[in-house]
Amino acid sequence: MTRKNAFYAQSGGVTAVINATACGLIEAARQHRDRIGKVYAGRNGIIGALTEDLIDTSRESAAAIAALRHTPAGAFGSCRYKLKSLEENRREYERLIEVFEAHNIGYFFYNGGGDSADTCLKVSQLSERMGYPIQAIHVPKTVDNDLPITDNCPGFGSVAKYIAISTLEASLDVASMAKTSTKVFVLEVMGRHAGWIAAAGGLASSEDMALPIVILFPEVTFDRDRFLAKVEQMVADHGYCSVVVSEGVRGPDGRFLSDQGLRDAFGHAQLGGVAPVVASIIKENLGYKYHWGVADYLQRAARHIASKTDVEQAYAMGKAAVQFALKGHNAVMPTIERRSSKPYRWGVGMAPLKKVANVEKMMPRSFITRDGFGITNKCREYLAPLIKGEDYPPYRNGLPRYVRLKNIAVPRKLEAFEI
Amino acid sequence: MTRKNAFYAQSGGVTAVINATACGLIEAARQHRDRIGKVYAGRNGIIGALTEDLIDTSRESAAAIAALRHTPAGAFGSCRYKLKSLEENRREYERLIEVFEAHNIGYFFYNGGGDSADTCLKVSQLSERMGYPIQAIHVPKTVDNDLPITDNCPGFGSVAKYIAISTLEASLDVASMAKTSTKVFVLEVMGRHAGWIAAAGGLASSEDMALPIVILFPEVTFDRDRFLAKVEQMVADHGYCSVVVSEGVRGPDGRFLSDQGLRDAFGHAQLGGVAPVVASIIKENLGYKYHWGVADYLQRAARHIASKTDVEQAYAMGKAAVQFALKGHNAVMPTIERRSSKPYRWGVGMAPLKKVANVEKMMPRSFITRDGFGITNKCREYLAPLIKGEDYPPYRNGLPRYVRLKNIAVPRKLEAFEI
Repeated sequence: MTRKNAFYAQSGGVTAVINATACGLIEAARQHRDRIGKVYAGRNGIIGALTEDLIDTSRESAAAIAALRHTPAGAFGSCRYKLKSLEENRREYERLIEVFEAHNIGYFFYNGGGDSADTCLKVSQLSERMGYPIQAIHVPKTVDNDLPITDNCPGFGSVAKYIAISTLEASLDVASMAKTSTKVFVLEVMGRHAGWIAAAGGLASSEDMALPIVILFPEVTFDRDRFLAKVEQMVADHGYCSVVVSEGVRGPDGRFLSDQGLRDAFGHAQLGGVAPVVASIIKENLGYKYHWGVADYLQRAARHIASKTDVEQAYAMGKAAVQFALKGHNAVMPTIERRSSKPYRWGVGMAPLKKVANVEKMMPRSFITRDGFGITNKCREYLAPLIKGEDYPPYRNGLPRYVRLKNIAVPRKLEAFEI
Repeated sequence: MTRKNAFYAQSGGVTAVINATACGLIEAARQHRDRIGKVYAGRNGIIGALTEDLIDTSRESAAAIAALRHTPAGAFGSCRYKLKSLEENRREYERLIEVFEAHNIGYFFYNGGGDSADTCLKVSQLSERMGYPIQAIHVPKTVDNDLPITDNCPGFGSVAKYIAISTLEASLDVASMAKTSTKVFVLEVMGRHAGWIAAAGGLASSEDMALPIVILFPEVTFDRDRFLAKVEQMVADHGYCSVVVSEGVRGPDGRFLSDQGLRDAFGHAQLGGVAPVVASIIKENLGYKYHWGVADYLQRAARHIASKTDVEQAYAMGKAAVQFALKGHNAVMPTIERRSSKPYRWGVGMAPLKKVANVEKMMPRSFITRDGFGITNKCREYLAPLIKGEDYPPYRNGLPRYVRLKNIAVPRKLEAFEI
């Protein structure tokens, strides 16, 4: 068989473990140098392919590649750049294939969510029609946990662990203060469409330690009166409570709760989060002193407390992508298959991209309690194994030793391309 | 010598390691049962003493007390309750001493910041005048790091470590996204008066990995134009930057920058943080896409990534308090003495409460760079050892195994007391 190079790109919002996937993929490719020449990475994702800005990962030491496993964020840069439809901008797809051909690239590994699965599929289809067939493998990644077929998405387990631990720790804090001071802590978490991350806040309360936690899911329309009654009850029963609120919660008018039309003293619009809005509603109606936090990037970058399960799965997805490619598969995605929950057992499966692209997996209603403010045992059983295990990075001088790659560019061969 | 019981209370905002101090104190006391009978803890701090709501820590197993070392927040409850001056409310001080006498308490250990050092001193003074002398030992605790004499305060090192790591991780995240999306990440941290915690954000940039970080200290008046110029320069040089902003930053008018007179669509005042304000200023003037986070309680409760140095020092302070008491000391506080920075060596010292009470230690100007947006090498040398080492709690099912004590009440002997 002829030896082809591979192209790898990171897409969309990064995670604590997307580099673990890169690590698995590059390490697996290096074990098959007879079949896969070099792995080129796109600088800043797919933009690197369009602009022929390729990174030669073969210039990185084995130690540097191994360190990707414990380094958060996107080591080669990511981007938010959705290719338009084939009809709208066929030129971009053709350019991709020209770049691949110029650099003898036969494998396209695209590491992202739903949008990138779609792009991946189109590249595969068009490359065949253009007479330069590319094996396109999508590698799953998203903290939103919303890809179909795969039981869960690499990146989600670590966010879930971070949110569960943070909710637990902040709950102990507010419990300590509640007698004379703060009675409610509000934590805003990611999840514009689906409440998977907010649900993880519910794990903070366990058999070991029951805690009063109210969750606001984007799947449940915010009902101010019922919410206030719930918080009041929690505080009456426990003296305090924590509220975990998804950024995507909407009111009965369909607008985001965070979209309060805030104006500063000069009438300028201010972009606030949803946490201060929820806190204000509580203060105004119940009078409780509150604190609020917004986890934002901290939650998805928190490699220091990544889930061991998540790291292992992220690595396995990268490795499986290479194995699939070597077996001749095309337009597929490795998946995580849950074989059993108790004890947790999982394996690697395969899904055709046609069934993955543009399908969003929402949280089942059976995962949310009837009152809409908590998670059911079914949800708990699903989530629990995903946060299991710790996988600490090495430290020096009190800080994790994350790696920064050299990211040396591959010499260009083509004309420049405007995007 | 007669055997006396001891009273221990946690005061003010809790930390990731205040329970480690409780652990050190109770374990040391248990080794001297001939001199110290039982350790009673105040339920919800000093309020527990005033209302005679005492917790009998002798009812807790050795394993439960040992687990305090790795459990964040205040295991007995804390409070924000500052005793008035002796002149204003002598009755409260007398009540404390009545309660101590009723329960044969000869040692008063008060674990807190500047205010509680003052209370501790007054109790010691008044008890002598009332003919029931109490040995009052203050035990330092505060994330604000603003107590005098002691080189640093237990609780601070762990917050500093959390902020340094979070800033590092979020910086890697925004660096990955900057090409097409977020260029600035703004992280709001605690510190209303002093910039110690904000300074810790500067540690994220190290010799191992230089990062573009702009710090806004409460010690430096916010200068909008100079700040914008700094951010613009950082983004021009690096493609992105992180801003670590202390909640206590004030504008030239002396008002908190967070106090923007925000109103919702109905004209109701909204309490926002400073992070969204800073992010809006950047967006409006430079047009950069931003993200912002507010660490709030997460930073001071983050026992999962506590500094080993901090845990050891917190434990040592509790142990030293008992040793000081047994040696007959009164109206003193154990301190952390820095013997050397490189290599870091520290020991336990002793300070008279007269020199501690009501004195606030500010960050030296020499710790802030001339442009006001960063930390100097001198600051770095001071901070670096305080975040050193990890001290992971044990885990079960993906969550830290924090302890919840039984907190059994001591039977009351006195009339009720209204506070």
